[in-house]
Amino acid sequence: MRKSIAIDIDYTVADTLSRYIDWYHRDFGILISKDKVRGGKLYDIVDKEHRGDVKNFPDHPDFFADLPVFPGAIKTIKQLAEDYDIFFATAAMEHPNSFSAKYDWLKTHFPFVSNMNYIFCGFKGILNCDYLIDDTPRHLDAFKGKGLLFEAQHNVNCEGYERVSSWQEVPAKLGR
Amino acid sequence: MRKSIAIDIDYTVADTLSRYIDWYHRDFGILISKDKVRGGKLYDIVDKEHRGDVKNFPDHPDFFADLPVFPGAIKTIKQLAEDYDIFFATAAMEHPNSFSAKYDWLKTHFPFVSNMNYIFCGFKGILNCDYLIDDTPRHLDAFKGKGLLFEAQHNVNCEGYERVSSWQEVPAKLGR
Repeated sequence: MRKSIAIDIDYTVADTLSRYIDWYHRDFGILISKDKVRGGKLYDIVDKEHRGDVKNFPDHPDFFADLPVFPGAIKTIKQLAEDYDIFFATAAMEHPNSFSAKYDWLKTHFPFVSNMNYIFCGFKGILNCDYLIDDTPRHLDAFKGKGLLFEAQHNVNCEGYERVSSWQEVPAKLGR
Repeated sequence: MRKSIAIDIDYTVADTLSRYIDWYHRDFGILISKDKVRGGKLYDIVDKEHRGDVKNFPDHPDFFADLPVFPGAIKTIKQLAEDYDIFFATAAMEHPNSFSAKYDWLKTHFPFVSNMNYIFCGFKGILNCDYLIDDTPRHLDAFKGKGLLFEAQHNVNCEGYERVSSWQEVPAKLGR
């Protein structure tokens, strides 16, 4: 029987941090480097009075519209799809305005994964898949299968997880 | 540990057939009784040239906006939520325009279930829950836990499933 892999979107296949940085620069005129965000998320390090606005960036559908894909993600996932059932599982419930934009984004970049395999949820403990690749430790904690932490600036200090820092590393971690 | 129940929306907590019948009457001037639909869905029995339009009804967000809730659903699910983790799992991927409307509908009628427990998916085999209450046999077939078929006109001839025909019957089927 084919095994299944659930894959998160933000910070895992999509370079969400770059979008936060761009929009913060656009709206507040301050350019922050990715290194500065190390250990947290952008809204953790900006001025307190900007925090609410930054947290709400993903409520705007344009946030997801042309979000860049991480290098190697499409090629690797296409290869994995030959042997595994691929699902995209995104915690979309925090930003319900983003549903359609996320759906369109997946359709555009991963046309080889059926939309029947998209999962918009809040709690990833409900996923019955063999693997979960995700940047968020709490989702891996809740998940019942084997988790791989996709490295992101905000999780560099989280210990106790098997990590991948690029899509090129993923197949080997799955024993391929 | 608390057990979990995944609950479908259309034809299970929401009276979707009534909406199809109302809109068919509104758009084509033909009133069809629920009994006439027995054994299929509305688009199976309407004139061939109307079929496409009827199938696309759920693409309009208003389809879900004020969809009626089945009698007893709110009361029963509220009671079950005291002892079980309740999830709403809906095959929303067939009608991506419906995401926001479905989200709002759940928020309105089931405010006691966290939006973190909503799941918009295509394939219910990915659900890691103990029970699934659903009107669609193929979703129960794919599900790994115990399924309960919620009776609907379109599934009356489907054999081999444990059935409930109203929300009042559900607690006893769960051994309560």
